[in-house]
Amino acid sequence: MTGRGPRGERGEQAERIVATARRAFATRGYAATSLRSVAQEAGVDPGLVNYYFRTKAGLLDEVMQPPEAFGAAVAAAAEQPMDRRGHAFVQAALDLWEDPVSAETLRAIILTAAQEPAALQRLRQLFSELVLAVVSHNVPDTERDLRASLISTQIVGMVMNRYIWRIGTMATLPAPSVIDLIAPTVQHYLTGTLPLSPGDDSRGPG
Amino acid sequence: MTGRGPRGERGEQAERIVATARRAFATRGYAATSLRSVAQEAGVDPGLVNYYFRTKAGLLDEVMQPPEAFGAAVAAAAEQPMDRRGHAFVQAALDLWEDPVSAETLRAIILTAAQEPAALQRLRQLFSELVLAVVSHNVPDTERDLRASLISTQIVGMVMNRYIWRIGTMATLPAPSVIDLIAPTVQHYLTGTLPLSPGDDSRGPG
Repeated sequence: MTGRGPRGERGEQAERIVATARRAFATRGYAATSLRSVAQEAGVDPGLVNYYFRTKAGLLDEVMQPPEAFGAAVAAAAEQPMDRRGHAFVQAALDLWEDPVSAETLRAIILTAAQEPAALQRLRQLFSELVLAVVSHNVPDTERDLRASLISTQIVGMVMNRYIWRIGTMATLPAPSVIDLIAPTVQHYLTGTLPLSPGDDSRGPG
Repeated sequence: MTGRGPRGERGEQAERIVATARRAFATRGYAATSLRSVAQEAGVDPGLVNYYFRTKAGLLDEVMQPPEAFGAAVAAAAEQPMDRRGHAFVQAALDLWEDPVSAETLRAIILTAAQEPAALQRLRQLFSELVLAVVSHNVPDTERDLRASLISTQIVGMVMNRYIWRIGTMATLPAPSVIDLIAPTVQHYLTGTLPLSPGDDSRGPG
Protein backbone atom coordinates (compact mmCIF):
# COMPACT_ATOMS: atom_id res chain seq x y z
CA MET A 1 0.00 0.00 0.00
CA THR A 2 3.06 2.27 0.18
CA GLY A 3 5.27 3.47 -2.63
CA ARG A 4 2.65 4.97 -4.94
CA GLY A 5 -0.25 7.36 -4.85
CA PRO A 6 -0.62 10.29 -2.50
CA ARG A 7 -0.24 8.17 0.62
CA GLY A 8 3.04 6.65 -0.48
CA GLU A 9 4.46 10.05 -1.38
CA ARG A 10 3.73 11.33 2.08
CA GLY A 11 5.62 8.40 3.43
CA GLU A 12 5.52 6.01 6.24
CA GLN A 13 4.64 8.45 9.01
CA ALA A 14 1.45 9.59 7.28
CA GLU A 15 0.51 5.94 6.79
CA ARG A 16 1.00 5.30 10.50
CA ILE A 17 -1.12 8.31 11.45
CA VAL A 18 -3.98 7.12 9.22
CA ALA A 19 -3.76 3.55 10.58
CA THR A 20 -3.85 4.88 14.14
CA ALA A 21 -6.81 7.15 13.41
CA ARG A 22 -8.62 4.24 11.76
CA ARG A 23 -8.30 2.13 14.91
CA ALA A 24 -9.27 5.05 17.17
CA PHE A 25 -12.36 6.00 15.15
CA ALA A 26 -13.51 2.37 15.01
CA THR A 27 -12.83 1.65 18.67
CA ARG A 28 -13.58 4.88 20.52
CA GLY A 29 -15.67 6.67 17.93
CA TYR A 30 -14.89 9.76 15.87
CA ALA A 31 -16.16 12.26 18.43
CA ALA A 32 -14.04 10.80 21.25
CA THR A 33 -10.82 10.94 19.21
CA SER A 34 -8.65 14.05 19.15
CA LEU A 35 -5.84 14.83 16.69
CA ARG A 36 -3.55 15.06 19.73
CA SER A 37 -4.43 11.54 20.93
CA VAL A 38 -3.87 10.16 17.41
CA ALA A 39 -0.43 11.82 17.30
CA GLN A 40 0.45 10.43 20.70
CA GLU A 41 -0.63 6.88 19.83
CA ALA A 42 1.14 7.02 16.47
CA GLY A 43 4.29 8.24 18.19
CA VAL A 44 4.60 11.40 16.10
CA ASP A 45 4.62 15.11 16.86
CA PRO A 46 1.09 16.63 16.87
CA GLY A 47 2.37 19.27 14.45
CA LEU A 48 2.97 16.53 11.90
CA VAL A 49 -0.67 15.44 12.01
CA ASN A 50 -1.71 19.04 11.41
CA TYR A 51 0.84 19.33 8.64
CA TYR A 52 -0.35 16.26 6.75
CA PHE A 53 -4.12 16.42 7.35
CA ARG A 54 -4.82 19.98 8.58
CA THR A 55 -8.06 19.06 10.43
CA LYS A 56 -9.84 16.09 11.94
CA ALA A 57 -12.14 16.21 8.91
CA GLY A 58 -9.09 15.88 6.65
CA LEU A 59 -7.97 12.85 8.60
CA LEU A 60 -11.48 11.41 8.41
CA ASP A 61 -11.38 11.71 4.64
CA GLU A 62 -8.22 9.59 4.56
CA VAL A 63 -9.70 7.02 6.93
CA MET A 64 -12.75 6.68 4.68
CA GLN A 65 -10.64 5.78 1.62
CA PRO A 66 -11.47 2.16 0.78
CA PRO A 67 -8.58 -0.33 0.60
CA GLU A 68 -6.85 -0.26 -2.79
CA ALA A 69 -7.92 -3.86 -3.37
CA PHE A 70 -11.59 -2.87 -2.99
CA GLY A 71 -12.03 -1.10 -6.31
CA ALA A 72 -10.12 -3.80 -8.18
CA ALA A 73 -12.16 -6.60 -6.59
CA VAL A 74 -15.46 -4.92 -7.38
CA ALA A 75 -14.38 -4.20 -10.94
CA ALA A 76 -13.30 -7.81 -11.49
CA ALA A 77 -16.63 -9.10 -10.17
CA ALA A 78 -18.48 -6.67 -12.42
CA GLU A 79 -16.77 -8.19 -15.47
CA GLN A 80 -18.02 -11.70 -14.75
CA PRO A 81 -20.79 -13.09 -16.96
CA MET A 82 -24.18 -12.23 -15.53
CA ASP A 83 -24.96 -15.74 -14.26
CA ARG A 84 -21.68 -15.84 -12.25
CA ARG A 85 -21.67 -12.26 -11.02
CA GLY A 86 -23.59 -12.84 -7.80
CA HIS A 87 -21.11 -15.50 -6.73
CA ALA A 88 -18.18 -13.33 -7.82
CA PHE A 89 -19.40 -10.38 -5.79
CA VAL A 90 -19.84 -12.44 -2.61
CA GLN A 91 -16.43 -14.03 -3.19
CA ALA A 92 -14.86 -10.58 -3.56
CA ALA A 93 -16.50 -9.36 -0.36
CA LEU A 94 -15.27 -12.38 1.58
CA ASP A 95 -11.74 -12.02 0.17
CA LEU A 96 -11.59 -8.41 1.31
CA TRP A 97 -12.96 -9.13 4.79
CA GLU A 98 -10.82 -12.23 5.39
CA ASP A 99 -7.72 -10.11 4.79
CA PRO A 100 -6.83 -8.39 8.09
CA VAL A 101 -5.50 -5.19 6.51
CA SER A 102 -8.44 -4.43 4.22
CA ALA A 103 -10.87 -5.70 6.89
CA GLU A 104 -9.61 -3.13 9.37
CA THR A 105 -10.05 -0.34 6.83
CA LEU A 106 -13.56 -1.44 5.87
CA ARG A 107 -14.48 -1.89 9.52
CA ALA A 108 -13.41 1.67 10.30
CA ILE A 109 -15.45 2.95 7.35
CA ILE A 110 -18.60 1.12 8.49
CA LEU A 111 -18.35 2.04 12.17
CA THR A 112 -17.43 5.66 11.52
CA ALA A 113 -20.20 6.09 8.95
CA ALA A 114 -22.79 4.99 11.49
CA GLN A 115 -21.93 7.93 13.73
CA GLU A 116 -20.42 10.73 11.67
CA PRO A 117 -22.46 12.47 8.95
CA ALA A 118 -19.38 13.38 6.88
CA ALA A 119 -18.31 9.74 6.93
CA LEU A 120 -21.79 8.61 5.98
CA GLN A 121 -21.66 10.96 3.00
CA ARG A 122 -18.41 9.34 1.93
CA LEU A 123 -19.96 5.86 2.29
CA ARG A 124 -22.93 6.90 0.12
CA GLN A 125 -20.47 8.05 -2.53
CA LEU A 126 -18.57 4.74 -2.38
CA PHE A 127 -21.85 2.93 -2.72
CA SER A 128 -22.86 4.90 -5.81
CA GLU A 129 -19.48 4.51 -7.46
CA LEU A 130 -18.71 0.90 -6.66
CA VAL A 131 -21.76 -1.17 -5.75
CA LEU A 132 -23.80 0.27 -8.59
CA ALA A 133 -20.92 -0.59 -10.94
CA VAL A 134 -21.43 -4.29 -10.26
CA VAL A 135 -24.93 -4.25 -11.62
CA SER A 136 -24.41 -1.62 -14.27
CA HIS A 137 -23.99 -4.00 -17.23
CA ASN A 138 -26.93 -5.83 -18.76
CA VAL A 139 -29.44 -4.59 -16.19
CA PRO A 140 -32.26 -2.26 -17.28
CA ASP A 141 -31.70 1.29 -15.99
CA THR A 142 -35.01 1.23 -14.15
CA GLU A 143 -34.00 -1.78 -12.04
CA ARG A 144 -30.36 -0.97 -11.41
CA ASP A 145 -30.72 1.06 -8.20
CA LEU A 146 -33.21 -1.38 -6.69
CA ARG A 147 -31.11 -4.46 -7.45
CA ALA A 148 -27.91 -2.80 -6.17
CA SER A 149 -29.68 -1.82 -2.96
CA LEU A 150 -31.01 -5.35 -2.40
CA ILE A 151 -27.54 -6.80 -2.98
CA SER A 152 -26.20 -4.32 -0.47
CA THR A 153 -28.69 -5.52 2.19
CA GLN A 154 -27.43 -9.10 1.84
CA ILE A 155 -23.70 -8.31 1.75
CA VAL A 156 -23.81 -5.73 4.54
CA GLY A 157 -25.88 -8.03 6.75
CA MET A 158 -23.42 -10.88 6.24
CA VAL A 159 -20.55 -8.51 7.08
CA MET A 160 -22.24 -7.20 10.24
CA ASN A 161 -22.97 -10.68 11.59
CA ARG A 162 -19.69 -12.32 10.57
CA TYR A 163 -17.06 -9.61 10.87
CA ILE A 164 -18.38 -6.71 12.97
CA TRP A 165 -20.46 -8.46 15.65
CA ARG A 166 -19.04 -11.97 15.16
CA ILE A 167 -22.41 -13.38 16.12
CA GLY A 168 -24.15 -16.69 15.37
CA THR A 169 -23.21 -19.39 12.87
CA MET A 170 -22.16 -16.78 10.27
CA ALA A 171 -19.17 -15.94 12.47
CA THR A 172 -17.75 -19.47 12.55
CA LEU A 173 -18.51 -21.03 9.14
CA PRO A 174 -15.64 -21.46 6.68
CA ALA A 175 -15.64 -18.79 3.99
CA PRO A 176 -16.59 -21.17 1.12
CA SER A 177 -19.74 -22.22 3.00
CA VAL A 178 -20.73 -18.59 3.53
CA ILE A 179 -20.32 -17.99 -0.19
CA ASP A 180 -22.42 -21.06 -1.07
CA LEU A 181 -25.19 -19.91 1.28
CA ILE A 182 -25.27 -16.20 0.42
CA ALA A 183 -24.39 -16.15 -3.29
CA PRO A 184 -27.77 -17.54 -4.49
CA THR A 185 -29.55 -14.65 -2.79
CA VAL A 186 -27.24 -12.07 -4.34
CA GLN A 187 -27.64 -13.74 -7.73
CA HIS A 188 -31.41 -13.64 -7.27
CA TYR A 189 -31.32 -9.92 -6.45
CA LEU A 190 -29.15 -9.38 -9.53
CA THR A 191 -31.08 -11.38 -12.14
CA GLY A 192 -34.20 -12.91 -10.55
CA THR A 193 -37.79 -11.81 -10.93
CA LEU A 194 -38.58 -9.27 -8.24
CA PRO A 195 -42.02 -8.40 -6.84
CA LEU A 196 -41.70 -4.80 -7.99
CA SER A 197 -45.31 -3.77 -7.60
CA PRO A 198 -46.43 -3.23 -3.98
CA GLY A 199 -49.53 -5.38 -4.46
CA ASP A 200 -47.64 -8.31 -5.95
CA ASP A 201 -47.70 -11.31 -3.61
CA SER A 202 -45.27 -13.62 -5.35
CA ARG A 203 -43.01 -15.19 -2.75
CA GLY A 204 -40.48 -17.68 -4.00
CA PRO A 205 -37.16 -16.19 -5.08
CA GLY A 206 -35.96 -17.27 -8.49
CA MET B 1 -43.42 2.09 28.60
CA THR B 2 -44.01 3.63 32.02
CA GLY B 3 -46.20 2.37 34.83
CA ARG B 4 -44.92 -1.18 35.14
CA GLY B 5 -41.66 -3.05 35.47
CA PRO B 6 -38.49 -1.71 37.02
CA ARG B 7 -38.31 1.34 34.76
CA GLY B 8 -41.81 2.49 35.61
CA GLU B 9 -41.20 2.10 39.32
CA ARG B 10 -38.18 4.31 39.11
CA GLY B 11 -40.31 6.91 37.46
CA GLU B 12 -40.10 9.50 34.82
CA GLN B 13 -36.68 10.90 35.66
CA ALA B 14 -34.99 7.52 35.23
CA GLU B 15 -36.77 7.15 31.89
CA ARG B 16 -35.45 10.52 30.80
CA ILE B 17 -31.90 9.64 31.82
CA VAL B 18 -32.04 6.39 29.81
CA ALA B 19 -33.46 8.17 26.76
CA THR B 20 -30.72 10.80 26.96
CA ALA B 21 -27.99 8.16 27.32
CA ARG B 22 -29.44 6.28 24.37
CA ARG B 23 -29.13 9.33 22.13
CA ALA B 24 -25.66 10.14 23.43
CA PHE B 25 -24.30 6.60 22.97
CA ALA B 26 -25.74 6.39 19.46
CA THR B 27 -24.58 9.85 18.39
CA ARG B 28 -21.27 10.44 20.16
CA GLY B 29 -20.36 6.86 21.06
CA TYR B 30 -20.20 5.14 24.43
CA ALA B 31 -16.59 6.11 25.17
CA ALA B 32 -17.20 9.81 24.52
CA THR B 33 -20.20 9.99 26.86
CA SER B 34 -19.79 10.68 30.58
CA LEU B 35 -22.41 10.17 33.29
CA ARG B 36 -22.04 13.87 34.05
CA SER B 37 -22.85 14.89 30.46
CA VAL B 38 -25.89 12.60 30.45
CA ALA B 39 -27.13 14.20 33.69
CA GLN B 40 -26.62 17.65 32.27
CA GLU B 41 -28.45 16.90 29.01
CA ALA B 42 -31.28 15.17 30.87
CA GLY B 43 -31.61 18.16 33.18
CA VAL B 44 -31.12 16.17 36.38
CA ASP B 45 -28.60 16.22 39.21
CA PRO B 46 -25.54 13.97 38.49
CA GLY B 47 -26.14 12.34 41.87
CA LEU B 48 -29.46 11.06 40.59
CA VAL B 49 -27.78 9.24 37.68
CA ASN B 50 -25.41 7.61 40.14
CA TYR B 51 -28.30 6.77 42.45
CA TYR B 52 -30.35 5.05 39.75
CA PHE B 53 -27.63 3.38 37.66
CA ARG B 54 -24.48 3.42 39.87
CA THR B 55 -22.03 3.20 36.94
CA LYS B 56 -21.82 3.87 33.22
CA ALA B 57 -21.98 0.08 32.75
CA GLY B 58 -25.26 0.06 34.67
CA LEU B 59 -26.63 2.75 32.41
CA LEU B 60 -25.40 0.83 29.36
CA ASP B 61 -27.32 -2.22 30.52
CA GLU B 62 -30.53 -0.15 30.56
CA VAL B 63 -29.81 1.32 27.13
CA MET B 64 -29.35 -2.19 25.72
CA GLN B 65 -32.80 -3.32 26.85
CA PRO B 66 -34.83 -3.90 23.67
CA PRO B 67 -38.13 -2.03 23.28
CA GLU B 68 -40.98 -3.81 25.08
CA ALA B 69 -42.71 -4.32 21.72
CA PHE B 70 -39.68 -6.25 20.44
CA GLY B 71 -40.21 -9.45 22.40
CA ALA B 72 -43.93 -9.44 21.70
CA ALA B 73 -43.42 -8.89 17.97
CA VAL B 74 -40.87 -11.69 17.68
CA ALA B 75 -43.07 -14.06 19.69
CA ALA B 76 -46.09 -13.30 17.49
CA ALA B 77 -44.08 -13.93 14.33
CA ALA B 78 -42.78 -17.20 15.79
CA GLU B 79 -46.37 -18.43 16.22
CA GLN B 80 -47.21 -18.00 12.54
CA PRO B 81 -47.52 -21.15 10.42
CA MET B 82 -44.17 -22.07 8.92
CA ASP B 83 -45.02 -20.94 5.38
CA ARG B 84 -46.00 -17.45 6.61
CA ARG B 85 -43.28 -17.01 9.22
CA GLY B 86 -40.67 -15.41 6.97
CA HIS B 87 -43.12 -12.73 5.93
CA ALA B 88 -44.29 -12.26 9.53
CA PHE B 89 -40.74 -11.77 10.77
CA VAL B 90 -39.90 -9.15 8.13
CA GLN B 91 -43.21 -7.42 8.83
CA ALA B 92 -42.40 -7.36 12.56
CA ALA B 93 -38.94 -5.91 11.90
CA LEU B 94 -40.38 -3.17 9.70
CA ASP B 95 -43.11 -2.34 12.24
CA LEU B 96 -40.51 -1.90 14.97
CA TRP B 97 -38.19 0.22 12.83
CA GLU B 98 -40.94 2.41 11.36
CA ASP B 99 -41.96 3.38 14.91
CA PRO B 100 -39.72 6.29 16.01
CA VAL B 101 -39.58 5.26 19.69
CA SER B 102 -38.59 1.63 19.22
CA ALA B 103 -36.36 2.58 16.26
CA GLU B 104 -34.32 4.92 18.44
CA THR B 105 -33.85 2.18 21.03
CA LEU B 106 -32.83 -0.42 18.46
CA ARG B 107 -30.53 2.05 16.75
CA ALA B 108 -28.74 2.74 20.02
CA ILE B 109 -28.36 -0.99 20.62
CA ILE B 110 -26.85 -1.58 17.17
CA LEU B 111 -24.47 1.37 17.19
CA THR B 112 -23.31 0.82 20.76
CA ALA B 113 -22.79 -2.91 20.20
CA ALA B 114 -20.44 -2.17 17.31
CA GLN B 115 -18.06 -0.32 19.63
CA GLU B 116 -18.50 -1.54 23.20
CA PRO B 117 -17.75 -5.19 24.10
CA ALA B 118 -20.24 -5.24 27.00
CA ALA B 119 -22.95 -4.01 24.64
CA LEU B 120 -21.98 -6.60 22.04
CA GLN B 121 -22.32 -9.29 24.68
CA ARG B 122 -25.84 -8.05 25.41
CA LEU B 123 -26.68 -8.10 21.69
CA ARG B 124 -25.46 -11.70 21.41
CA GLN B 125 -27.74 -12.60 24.30
CA LEU B 126 -30.72 -10.89 22.63
CA PHE B 127 -29.94 -12.77 19.44
CA SER B 128 -29.88 -16.16 21.20
CA GLU B 129 -33.06 -15.49 23.13
CA LEU B 130 -35.16 -13.84 20.45
CA VAL B 131 -34.01 -14.52 16.91
CA LEU B 132 -33.46 -18.21 17.60
CA ALA B 133 -37.00 -18.32 19.03
CA VAL B 134 -38.43 -17.49 15.61
CA VAL B 135 -37.00 -20.61 14.06
CA SER B 136 -37.31 -22.86 17.10
CA HIS B 137 -40.52 -24.64 16.06
CA ASN B 138 -40.57 -27.27 13.34
CA VAL B 139 -36.95 -26.79 12.37
CA PRO B 140 -34.46 -29.62 12.96
CA ASP B 141 -32.07 -28.83 15.83
CA THR B 142 -29.06 -29.24 13.55
CA GLU B 143 -30.27 -26.48 11.18
CA ARG B 144 -31.69 -24.01 13.68
CA ASP B 145 -28.56 -21.95 14.37
CA LEU B 146 -27.59 -21.77 10.71
CA ARG B 147 -31.07 -20.71 9.55
CA ALA B 148 -31.38 -18.11 12.31
CA SER B 149 -27.98 -16.68 11.40
CA LEU B 150 -28.88 -16.45 7.71
CA ILE B 151 -32.15 -14.70 8.57
CA SER B 152 -30.18 -12.30 10.70
CA THR B 153 -27.89 -11.40 7.77
CA GLN B 154 -30.89 -10.39 5.65
CA ILE B 155 -32.78 -8.47 8.34
CA VAL B 156 -29.71 -6.68 9.72
CA GLY B 157 -28.57 -5.72 6.23
CA MET B 158 -31.98 -4.28 5.40
CA VAL B 159 -31.92 -2.32 8.67
CA MET B 160 -28.40 -0.95 8.07
CA ASN B 161 -29.23 0.25 4.56
CA ARG B 162 -32.74 1.55 5.26
CA TYR B 163 -32.61 2.89 8.81
CA ILE B 164 -29.01 3.38 9.94
CA TRP B 165 -27.29 4.60 6.79
CA ARG B 166 -30.43 5.57 4.83
CA ILE B 167 -28.64 4.64 1.64
CA GLY B 168 -29.88 3.54 -1.80
CA THR B 169 -33.36 2.49 -2.88
CA MET B 170 -33.95 0.60 0.40
CA ALA B 171 -34.08 3.95 2.20
CA THR B 172 -36.93 5.36 0.12
CA LEU B 173 -39.22 2.42 -0.79
CA PRO B 174 -42.57 2.16 1.01
CA ALA B 175 -42.51 -0.44 3.78
CA PRO B 176 -44.84 -2.92 2.00
CA SER B 177 -42.48 -3.03 -1.00
CA VAL B 178 -39.52 -3.75 1.26
CA ILE B 179 -41.46 -6.61 2.83
CA ASP B 180 -42.39 -8.02 -0.60
CA LEU B 181 -38.77 -7.89 -1.71
CA ILE B 182 -37.07 -9.20 1.44
CA ALA B 183 -39.60 -11.72 2.81
CA PRO B 184 -38.98 -14.39 0.11
CA THR B 185 -35.30 -14.49 1.08
CA VAL B 186 -36.10 -14.81 4.79
CA GLN B 187 -38.64 -17.52 4.00
CA HIS B 188 -36.03 -19.32 1.93
CA TYR B 189 -33.51 -19.19 4.79
CA LEU B 190 -36.21 -20.50 7.12
CA THR B 191 -37.60 -23.39 5.06
CA GLY B 192 -35.69 -23.65 1.76
CA THR B 193 -33.07 -26.19 0.77
CA LEU B 194 -29.67 -24.87 1.77
CA PRO B 195 -26.30 -25.82 0.25
CA LEU B 196 -25.04 -27.13 3.59
CA SER B 197 -22.04 -29.00 2.27
CA PRO B 198 -19.11 -26.82 1.16
CA GLY B 199 -18.81 -28.64 -2.16
CA ASP B 200 -22.48 -28.25 -3.06
CA ASP B 201 -22.94 -25.89 -6.00
CA SER B 202 -26.72 -25.53 -6.06
CA ARG B 203 -27.55 -21.92 -6.71
CA GLY B 204 -31.20 -21.08 -7.04
CA PRO B 205 -32.93 -20.24 -3.75
CA GLY B 206 -36.17 -22.16 -3.15
